Amino acid sequence: MSHDLTPTLVSFQAATEGFRAGTDSPRDFLERAIDKLEAAEPTLKAFAALAIPRARIVADGASLRWKEGRPVSRIDGMPIGIKDIIETFDMPMGLGSPTASGFQPVRDAAVVHALRDSGAAIVGKTKTTEFAGSYATDTRNPHDPTRTSGGSSAGSASAVGAGILPVALGTQVIGSTLRPASFCGAFGFKPTLGAINRGGSHDFQSHSCIGVIGASLADIWFTTHEMVQRAGGDPGAMGLIGKAELAAPAKPGKLILLQTPAWDDATASAREQLLATVSTMSAAGVQILSRDNHEGVAKFETALLEVMDLALDIVGYESRWPLKSVAYRDRDGLSPSVLTRIKLSDELGLDGYRALLTRRAAMREAFETLAREADAFITLGATGAAPKGIQWTGNPMFNVPASVLGAPALSLPVYEDEGMPLGLQLMGAQHTDERLFAIANYVMAR
Amino acid sequence: MSHDLTPTLVSFQAATEGFRAGTDSPRDFLERAIDKLEAAEPTLKAFAALAIPRARIVADGASLRWKEGRPVSRIDGMPIGIKDIIETFDMPMGLGSPTASGFQPVRDAAVVHALRDSGAAIVGKTKTTEFAGSYATDTRNPHDPTRTSGGSSAGSASAVGAGILPVALGTQVIGSTLRPASFCGAFGFKPTLGAINRGGSHDFQSHSCIGVIGASLADIWFTTHEMVQRAGGDPGAMGLIGKAELAAPAKPGKLILLQTPAWDDATASAREQLLATVSTMSAAGVQILSRDNHEGVAKFETALLEVMDLALDIVGYESRWPLKSVAYRDRDGLSPSVLTRIKLSDELGLDGYRALLTRRAAMREAFETLAREADAFITLGATGAAPKGIQWTGNPMFNVPASVLGAPALSLPVYEDEGMPLGLQLMGAQHTDERLFAIANYVMAR
Repeated sequence: MSHDLTPTLVSFQAATEGFRAGTDSPRDFLERAIDKLEAAEPTLKAFAALAIPRARIVADGASLRWKEGRPVSRIDGMPIGIKDIIETFDMPMGLGSPTASGFQPVRDAAVVHALRDSGAAIVGKTKTTEFAGSYATDTRNPHDPTRTSGGSSAGSASAVGAGILPVALGTQVIGSTLRPASFCGAFGFKPTLGAINRGGSHDFQSHSCIGVIGASLADIWFTTHEMVQRAGGDPGAMGLIGKAELAAPAKPGKLILLQTPAWDDATASAREQLLATVSTMSAAGVQILSRDNHEGVAKFETALLEVMDLALDIVGYESRWPLKSVAYRDRDGLSPSVLTRIKLSDELGLDGYRALLTRRAAMREAFETLAREADAFITLGATGAAPKGIQWTGNPMFNVPASVLGAPALSLPVYEDEGMPLGLQLMGAQHTDERLFAIANYVMAR
Repeated sequence: MSHDLTPTLVSFQAATEGFRAGTDSPRDFLERAIDKLEAAEPTLKAFAALAIPRARIVADGASLRWKEGRPVSRIDGMPIGIKDIIETFDMPMGLGSPTASGFQPVRDAAVVHALRDSGAAIVGKTKTTEFAGSYATDTRNPHDPTRTSGGSSAGSASAVGAGILPVALGTQVIGSTLRPASFCGAFGFKPTLGAINRGGSHDFQSHSCIGVIGASLADIWFTTHEMVQRAGGDPGAMGLIGKAELAAPAKPGKLILLQTPAWDDATASAREQLLATVSTMSAAGVQILSRDNHEGVAKFETALLEVMDLALDIVGYESRWPLKSVAYRDRDGLSPSVLTRIKLSDELGLDGYRALLTRRAAMREAFETLAREADAFITLGATGAAPKGIQWTGNPMFNVPASVLGAPALSLPVYEDEGMPLGLQLMGAQHTDERLFAIANYVMAR
């Protein structure tokens, strides 16, 4: 068996015609994934646990159904990876921390159950940084194993970017889905806050959500839609709004160029590529609003100067549990970065936290007002290529706004920097997820 | 040793003077609780697991601190029970279901960690109905062991009502804290939605919250305040608003008599006692608004006709996870009532659920508008005495409004029916928890 390890995205949706025709099958698709996994995993270290025997049984059932023209869903038999902070009843839960050693959930997370119900073949748990925070895991970037895959959804981005899996689940509360997707050359989707049910996922912070990393817009949209139809959104939330079909390409009338406080931290090449896209769009008749020509954008860019501190303080306070509970039981199992975070957040206190919530609400209101003036925001997926080394998961500054604002965002693998992938990011008002896919489809078609 | 099994509420707060004076200690208080527990538990069946050796060590530390005049909190050394759908790292988690057999959490829930941090001595896990739903557990009522203790916080209400514990935690999404408190002769508190951090509690529904059952208003307020100062509210919520001290008694200017759709289901004795209280209040100068003299109240009473269906449908949809995940793995371990609930909720679908959320939001808006016209609402804690037998946990109709509305509510053990305890319930607008305690203090002083 020859193993081509060139990282090439592998779409399940592109293969479904073959499943119907009988020239390919989900089982064959899975075996190709397993071959690639076995060849690449010793280098990539993307997986925390595997469930291949069960995945093969599931793929066999789906193979029959596709051939008979009656798949249970668009993702029937699709191999998928689950970030290891999301519970599955059949694999241990590692949380990227030795303190979780031996923890075996007795249930599937809501999305995992929904995926099984959709016929998806769960291949394994993908590695995460410690409690989805900043302390890195040992996962490598498929485009250059001497570099980080980003974090915290490290294994999911690496496995999709390497062409092992068509889709893997992540989570994002700072930049944990979009940044690794950008670094690993995959598509990344961080939906509207509450759009995907987080039950059984250990990302419990108030602006966290489940993210989807995939080989194409179609792979991501169908996976998300199938999950949400079955599991709903977070309790009390409307869930992802949109039709079952992938939105057709739609040229935006107006886009807002968002430079963010990290503009000067982006590489020259990254900035040039984004500005070139903006110029092309402009030439095609898309009106571009930016801080240079629109007062509202300039004002919002200024408001964003505090977005990272706001995010870190809110997430820090909300993460004291379970981290303090873990520290009580097994302090030596926690990284110095977590112990420092606990200390700082304790000093904030409940009144300090309440003040942060008020500031976040004000920032969201300003964002939603500005968002009504255009179809979407356009920015970078990251400051540049994945950093060298695996100790630092990279600068999340371009991803924080969508997190704090509860806004949907997509990272599209269309740029490159230092010979590595780099994403173009689209972001929109809450609940405009579907329109964002339509615009992304337009961008990708060009 | 003689064991007086007469159910008498035992307050920890009333004992603290003795702790300071050295005439009593948290360790002695705990030993009295253990004596009573050992004598009563074979009949009551209130506990799912015990952690007495650890509780003794904790109480000894607290005993020293009280004597030296430096307790870490108002509840330092206080014995407490934790409903068995809330995680503790040192006891198995039963969830009232055989499907959870062998599940050992690796962390404490946020409130459990906060309690340990406050010095509280966690005595054990208290029994719950199956997944805090309607399928009963085997717990008995301390006032008459042939009767139910109510549900779902069955063991917590039984242990407090029996005088074993001064405080125990429950949860409420329909009537699971206030109803058992009413049936067992304890004080029950269901706070404003989001007021107490639910992290690590398996009550995840959108209008569920942690409730506190206790021997007095002081025991409940101090416990809640200490927990929230340390753990905060739900992520994104403000947490319980109020000072550290228990609010002084305050005579309300206006009360709204809420009869609810269950008025005709209440026993004649229950109705008479509530109306007698209302008359006394009125004679004391409190203005009483009711459906008979106020159009807004009449209109709201009519709106409440749909509150139970709304609650059951919302909770049903949101509970499909984890119940469907459990059914996938261990269907035979679920009661017929759960299996039926899953089926009905599947038929509702995501669009149906969204419509329910819209209706709930409208009901909340009407409630908050009406609530501004008075200081609080007054009603019954239950339709009457705890039913005979332990198969049925009783009618929750008087408790559902506060659940759906996200409103704070208290059940005060001041009435009786069939020689059993019965609660007077106070309810207020969101975030008026502290005012509710002030009014309750006034009611109790009379």
